[in-house]
Amino acid sequence: MDPLEWKDGKLKFLDQTKLPFEEAYYLANNVETIAVAIEKLAIRGAPLIGIAGAYGVAVASFDIASRESNVIRKNLETAITRLASTRPTAVNLFRALERQRKIINQWQSNSLVDLQNSLIDEAIKIHSEEIESCERISSYGSELLPSSCSVLTHCNTGILATGGKGTALGIIRKSWELKKLNHVYIGETRPLLQGSRLTAWELKKDGIPATLITDSTTAYLMKKVKIDAVIVGADRIAINGDVANKIGTYNLAVLAKHHNIPFYVAAPVSTIDFGIKSGNEIQIEERNKKEVLEVNGMQIAPEETDVYAPAFDVTPYELITAIVTNQKVLYPPFVDSIKLLEHGISIS
Amino acid sequence: MDPLEWKDGKLKFLDQTKLPFEEAYYLANNVETIAVAIEKLAIRGAPLIGIAGAYGVAVASFDIASRESNVIRKNLETAITRLASTRPTAVNLFRALERQRKIINQWQSNSLVDLQNSLIDEAIKIHSEEIESCERISSYGSELLPSSCSVLTHCNTGILATGGKGTALGIIRKSWELKKLNHVYIGETRPLLQGSRLTAWELKKDGIPATLITDSTTAYLMKKVKIDAVIVGADRIAINGDVANKIGTYNLAVLAKHHNIPFYVAAPVSTIDFGIKSGNEIQIEERNKKEVLEVNGMQIAPEETDVYAPAFDVTPYELITAIVTNQKVLYPPFVDSIKLLEHGISIS
Repeated sequence: MDPLEWKDGKLKFLDQTKLPFEEAYYLANNVETIAVAIEKLAIRGAPLIGIAGAYGVAVASFDIASRESNVIRKNLETAITRLASTRPTAVNLFRALERQRKIINQWQSNSLVDLQNSLIDEAIKIHSEEIESCERISSYGSELLPSSCSVLTHCNTGILATGGKGTALGIIRKSWELKKLNHVYIGETRPLLQGSRLTAWELKKDGIPATLITDSTTAYLMKKVKIDAVIVGADRIAINGDVANKIGTYNLAVLAKHHNIPFYVAAPVSTIDFGIKSGNEIQIEERNKKEVLEVNGMQIAPEETDVYAPAFDVTPYELITAIVTNQKVLYPPFVDSIKLLEHGISIS
Repeated sequence: MDPLEWKDGKLKFLDQTKLPFEEAYYLANNVETIAVAIEKLAIRGAPLIGIAGAYGVAVASFDIASRESNVIRKNLETAITRLASTRPTAVNLFRALERQRKIINQWQSNSLVDLQNSLIDEAIKIHSEEIESCERISSYGSELLPSSCSVLTHCNTGILATGGKGTALGIIRKSWELKKLNHVYIGETRPLLQGSRLTAWELKKDGIPATLITDSTTAYLMKKVKIDAVIVGADRIAINGDVANKIGTYNLAVLAKHHNIPFYVAAPVSTIDFGIKSGNEIQIEERNKKEVLEVNGMQIAPEETDVYAPAFDVTPYELITAIVTNQKVLYPPFVDSIKLLEHGISIS
C-alpha cells in the first residue's frame, strides 16, 4: 500500500476518502486532478500533501503542449498557484512548491525534458526525505516512551499521511517493533473520521492492538485507563512552539495536562514555519459545513443548521511536553530549541 | 410535540431515534415495548426515562388478564424488574419505579381498576413534577447568566429529555425569553448525535440562534469565541457533587476550567442519589460498539475494530461551579449543600 507513486509522468494516488472500504487508486495526468484530490482529502496529511504538491508540478510539466520557455514557465507558475490554493494550513505544501519553483528558476537550457527530469528528481527527493524523516522521528520518539506503554493518538499520521512509517504513528509502530507498546487508543476524529477510517485500518494491517473511542471519551479514558502519552502530528509549527494540527488536538493537550500525561507532537522539520512567531499567524482552514452535517453523504442533522467547522486548531506551546522532529527532540522553551534548530546548532 | 402522552391505558411515545427526519409516534400497550424503546433510546433523557418507567408500570396494569391479587402483584413486580433492567445509570428511573412499587404495596382493595387508577395518577404526578421542575430550574439557572450571553451545551436536555421545558436547555430557553441569550453552541454528542439530531432541532423550532460543533472543536471554540457558560444536564449526582452525565461532559468540564468558564449542571432533585457518596459508585453503562462503528446503520470504521463506548462519564465535583436544581442552586462544597437539601434545611 503506497498512497502516492510516480508512474511515467503521472501520479498514482490512493483515494483516502474511500478507505477503509475500498482501496481505489487513480492516475493523475494533470494538475487539476491532483489539486481536487488534495481539496477533497483523497490525498491528505501534511507531509503527503507536500509530496503530492511537488509531484503535481512535475505532472504539470508533462501536460504542456508548447515548447516555448516562457509559456512553460507561465504554465508551471499557474500550476503552483493552483496547488497552493488547495489547503492553507499545512506548511509542507508551500515549502515543497517553493522548492519546485526554485528548480524552475534554475532551469537554464531550453529543453523541457531537462526541466521535467529535474522536477521529477526534486519530487522524488522530497518524497524520500519524508520517508527518511519518519524513520528518524520514529526512533527518537520511541525512546521517550516507557515500557509496556499505552498511548492515545488522534487523526491519521501514518503511511497514509506521510508516505513513510508515519510521524506520531511511526513512533507507535517503532515502539511496537521494540516491544515497548502495550496498546493504542485512537480518537475517531470527527468530522471526517481519519482516526476510525484510516488509523484503525493501518494498525489492524500491522496487527497492533488498538481501541477506538469517540473524541468526547478522552477525559474519561484518561481517568479509567493508564495512558502513558498522547502523541499527535502537526500541520504547522510556529517558532514559539505553537502547533496547528487536526481539530481536537488542543482538546487533547488540555486534557493530557489535567491528567498529568505527557503530550508529544511528532513532525518533520519541514512542518516548522520559521517565518511566523506564534500560532496566531497560522491561517486555519474552515471546511464545508456539510462535513459536519453529513456522514458519507448521509444527513445527520436538521438542514441549514449553522456549523462552525475549523479543520485545525492551535495548541499553545505551554501544553506541549516535547516536539519530536527528524533532527532531534525539541524541549521547552521551544522558542530557544527551535531557534537553535534553525541555525543548525546542536543543543544535545 | 410531546415525547410522552398517556392515552386510554396506553403510552404514546415519540421515537427519538428517527429525529430530526421523521416525527414518528407509537402506542405502547405492554411493558416490553416501553422497555425496548428505553433501551434503544427511542425514549431517552434521565427525567423522561423516569416518567416512562412510571407509565410503564401503569401500562403493565392494563395488560393483566387475571383478577387475582397475587398474580397482579407478581406481574407488576416482573414489569418493574424489566423496566429497571433497561438502563443502569440514570437514577430517575429507579426512583420512579420505587414510587410505583409503593403504590402497589399500598393497594388494599381487590379492585384492579383502583390499582390502575392509582398507578396512572402517580405516573401523571411524576410527569407533572418533572415539568414543574423544569420551570424552576429554568428560572433559577437563567439568573446565573450574564446579559447577551453565549453558552455551550451538550447532548439533549430539552423537551425531548424531560417532557417539560428542559433542564440545561430549559435555562437556555428561559434566557432567550428574557432576552439575555445571544447564542447557543451545541456539541454534536457522538456517538448518537443527540446534540445535532435533537438539540439543534428543538432550538430551530424555537428560533433560538444556534451553531453546531463537533465535540473536538470545544477547546478551540472556547479560545476563539467568548463563551459565558457551559450548561449540561445530569443522569445521576452523588452526594459529594460528582455528576454522571452523557459521555463528553467530563471533557467539557476540564476544558471550561482551563478557559475560566463557569460550568453549570442543571437537574431536578430526583437526579440526586442520596445513597451514594461519590461518582465511583455510579454504574456506567457501556453501549454496543456498533454505535461507534456505525452511523444510522452505515459502517464508518473497519469491521471488528475494538471500541470503548461508555455512554456516560463522571465529572468530579471540583470542576462544577454550581448545580441548578428545582429547589435551589447548589454551590460548593456540594457535600454540605446537598446534605442541607436532603434534610430540607434552607441554606439561602
